[in-house]
Amino acid sequence: MKIALAQLNYHIGNFDENIRKMTEAAQRASAMGAELVVFAELAVSGYPPRDFLEFDDFIQRCDSAARQLADACPDMGIIVGSPVKNTSGHGKPLYNAALFLYRHKITAFHKTLLPNYDVFDEYRYFEPGNTFEILHFKGVKIALTICEDLWNIGNDPLYNLNPMDELMKEKPALMVNIAASPFNYNQPHDRREVLRSNVLKYKLPLIYVNHVGAHTELLFDGGSMAFNADGFVQQSLAFFVEDLQLTDMAQLQHGQGSQADIQHIPEKIALIHDALVMGIRNYFDKLGFTKAILGLSGGIDSAVTMVLAAEALGAQNVFGLLMPSQFSSDHSVADALALARNLGAPEALVPIRDMFDAVEHSMKPLFQDLPFGLTEENIQARLRGLVLMAMTNKFGYILLNTSNKSEAAVGYGTLYGDMNGGLSVLGDLYKTEVFALAAYINREKEIIPLNTITKPPSAELRPGQKDSDSLPEYAILDELLFQYIEKRKGPAELVALGFDAGLVKRVLRLVNTNEYKRYQTPPILRVSPKAFGMGRRMPIVARYLS
Amino acid sequence: MKIALAQLNYHIGNFDENIRKMTEAAQRASAMGAELVVFAELAVSGYPPRDFLEFDDFIQRCDSAARQLADACPDMGIIVGSPVKNTSGHGKPLYNAALFLYRHKITAFHKTLLPNYDVFDEYRYFEPGNTFEILHFKGVKIALTICEDLWNIGNDPLYNLNPMDELMKEKPALMVNIAASPFNYNQPHDRREVLRSNVLKYKLPLIYVNHVGAHTELLFDGGSMAFNADGFVQQSLAFFVEDLQLTDMAQLQHGQGSQADIQHIPEKIALIHDALVMGIRNYFDKLGFTKAILGLSGGIDSAVTMVLAAEALGAQNVFGLLMPSQFSSDHSVADALALARNLGAPEALVPIRDMFDAVEHSMKPLFQDLPFGLTEENIQARLRGLVLMAMTNKFGYILLNTSNKSEAAVGYGTLYGDMNGGLSVLGDLYKTEVFALAAYINREKEIIPLNTITKPPSAELRPGQKDSDSLPEYAILDELLFQYIEKRKGPAELVALGFDAGLVKRVLRLVNTNEYKRYQTPPILRVSPKAFGMGRRMPIVARYLS
Repeated sequence: MKIALAQLNYHIGNFDENIRKMTEAAQRASAMGAELVVFAELAVSGYPPRDFLEFDDFIQRCDSAARQLADACPDMGIIVGSPVKNTSGHGKPLYNAALFLYRHKITAFHKTLLPNYDVFDEYRYFEPGNTFEILHFKGVKIALTICEDLWNIGNDPLYNLNPMDELMKEKPALMVNIAASPFNYNQPHDRREVLRSNVLKYKLPLIYVNHVGAHTELLFDGGSMAFNADGFVQQSLAFFVEDLQLTDMAQLQHGQGSQADIQHIPEKIALIHDALVMGIRNYFDKLGFTKAILGLSGGIDSAVTMVLAAEALGAQNVFGLLMPSQFSSDHSVADALALARNLGAPEALVPIRDMFDAVEHSMKPLFQDLPFGLTEENIQARLRGLVLMAMTNKFGYILLNTSNKSEAAVGYGTLYGDMNGGLSVLGDLYKTEVFALAAYINREKEIIPLNTITKPPSAELRPGQKDSDSLPEYAILDELLFQYIEKRKGPAELVALGFDAGLVKRVLRLVNTNEYKRYQTPPILRVSPKAFGMGRRMPIVARYLS
Repeated sequence: MKIALAQLNYHIGNFDENIRKMTEAAQRASAMGAELVVFAELAVSGYPPRDFLEFDDFIQRCDSAARQLADACPDMGIIVGSPVKNTSGHGKPLYNAALFLYRHKITAFHKTLLPNYDVFDEYRYFEPGNTFEILHFKGVKIALTICEDLWNIGNDPLYNLNPMDELMKEKPALMVNIAASPFNYNQPHDRREVLRSNVLKYKLPLIYVNHVGAHTELLFDGGSMAFNADGFVQQSLAFFVEDLQLTDMAQLQHGQGSQADIQHIPEKIALIHDALVMGIRNYFDKLGFTKAILGLSGGIDSAVTMVLAAEALGAQNVFGLLMPSQFSSDHSVADALALARNLGAPEALVPIRDMFDAVEHSMKPLFQDLPFGLTEENIQARLRGLVLMAMTNKFGYILLNTSNKSEAAVGYGTLYGDMNGGLSVLGDLYKTEVFALAAYINREKEIIPLNTITKPPSAELRPGQKDSDSLPEYAILDELLFQYIEKRKGPAELVALGFDAGLVKRVLRLVNTNEYKRYQTPPILRVSPKAFGMGRRMPIVARYLS
């Protein structure tokens, strides 16, 4: 039996479009000789639908959409994810289900293990499934599971149950797992090893279908695949783009196919690059926007953001605005212009000096002769934010935020100033990772001017300012932040790792007391295992390491 | 046996202060003749500690703090909430526990029912308890439960288990429930009825101890109480302030005490008023700030916000800044000044005209002769935001946001302009509720100038502008928003309720397409059952009713 793996880019709540795509894919798969087509988890609704799941109307539309798909392709076996009602009268009102559609009939299989950590909130909506049934299709017994159902493997299990252990009692011949497994730079590797562990444990071939595409901050890299029963990837779908491929049950049996993975996972920085480009593109596409604007400072963050946006939207659709102040160096303007020229992107220059003077003049009765300081630095950043937002209002751009994770962590940025934007492109990359990404972008030719990369980072908000005046060197800062944020090490553990005790105290305090700023920042494209935003939920008013 | 109910205001992660308060309360209770003192759920850590719970260091500090309390008051029975480690080797790494401290010994009882809806994320951190043991203390068998454990009562149960059903097998003589039950205007009533249902079902007296105080958006009203076995409240602690009261086991038995509730719950608008004042006060206190600033427009939202802030912080600590533009009416300035004078609060005036002209001049090369429009309206709002933020930077104020829920819902506000602020005071009150609150504030004398209340609402960002030019009348809009947001009715249901189909479509579209703005707004003091913020989680990029 030939089975199609359909890896598509869905749009949350856009039922017509989701069903149209799936119908087209099912028909194409059928024409290619497939008898069964597999789509991703919650493909009908898009993922994550979040609190739309609490609306009866939304669930009814999911039901209708699934019915529409079943009726459009009655002779094809279809596996597709959708929320379904829990009609038992107790427990959460929904199940996260894998639907099997065939000959106008719809059968639901419920997800048992519901992830509720990091970016996941599934227990907010769903009742865990507690029945375990095999899907019988054309003589093949299929153990059908949903994403997390296969992840309770290894030491320290998070759940007290393995759905596959239950399903094995019925002696299935094939595992199928439909997933909504968001990208981070470890995930392609982690996912393949977890799936392989299942294959080796249960000695069955496995077909895995993931989402591809971006949903605001959550990026889905695809990477769907089929394992033979020996634990090797025999079919591998593309990363970061839609794909449809067939696999043959016969070739997934023991001793069949190759004794090596045919899947190639790109290196970390290439994954990040492709993820961010897809993230920008989908954000604009799915909101119906085409043009981006950003402030071009001549620095590395805005340069990298602009290159990624140009790849995502076309250089002609990315407007770079230069807004020098009296503290901007000549090279800032020159470097920014060189970048726009390299890309062939539109740019313009709006000096902020006159506006700054007008603000100073208007504030004079209240500020009197108080010295120039942080206030005036922030006024410059906020005027730039104001100018950029005026451009978005006048011409229909979306403003891209250019802050990086190191800055966001320690609060090195101005709320309502350079922290503005509809989407943060680099907010999950430490400064050292931004440098690595710049090098990757320049791997074949100098797109980002070399001077942008080699000069010492500076906000240029007062004379001669450098980031290193108020922050530790990024190589040290970033490693410390990584250990605190990604690894959740406490002060004693950090000191044991060799960090200076005073630095630890100072940096952790900065991270914790700047929670109020991060609360109001734009959504951040997530590429790490622990991004600011929905995956890291902290109190604002607290007194811990602060 | 006399038992003390200790209703305290904790500070998340401030272990020293939390333990100091509890030790002092336990000693006071002991001096009053109590043998047992009951504190709230997760009192040791403060609630909600959110992802700090993922730090080993944080949990170790909880352990040490509980040990410190046990050793400080060894001869007193103490019931207190704390996270504790799950050492079973499987499941989530923590339990949400009620600790019993006595004679230096610590015994943990685990929460079974973990709320994971609206503002609650307990399944993110905790493994549900699945053992049911009675606490024996001085001959009394106590069924000890934690908050949600008593809420699975009534039709459509959310969980498949009632911990009290299990505990009843041991024939307890008393129920004790420790809680972290956040305020909304229905909650004091709902809570009392749920607890009473337990008393009537299990025919046992019940002691209930809640938090009091604010943790950013989450407000805790206190209202701790003791029921006799006949279902009547015999001891009632204050709302919105710390309190310590004793109750006597003997007087909670069947046929003892009064056959009526002694608890008086204030009316809705008084509850909201007191909740907001506490919310502001605690936000400042717990962050170590004393002074607030806000933009005073002469309108009702800023007036009500200023009055509440003055009650919370003292009028001398609330600075009202008037920032008229060329479109501001004379009465705006007059009404704003009258309010400041009524309160005895400091004020100043910074006209934005010159700054606006400087922006227009600087943008001229890009804007050319494009007509005045939304862009220019937003520039005014953003200049005001910039001026207010400059004042916070220069003088150490926190900016209070004055947006209401109706505006937040439909996106009637300028991001990085009037949507700025460290804390949103009225963001969970519909405009009609703001009017009701203004009337309540003026119930004895005219604090808010009458003209502020009676004039038609206007943003005054272009000549002759009124809210009703672009929005439906608030009486209709607010009811529609309430049905969509609080009641989660879909379009067909809303039309069936009598709303115009075109209006429903337009308003729901506004709500859904403005999710991107609400993502970046300040935390909102929560007073309703469904507030924007952590309790309502929506996708930004979606196409549903939009």
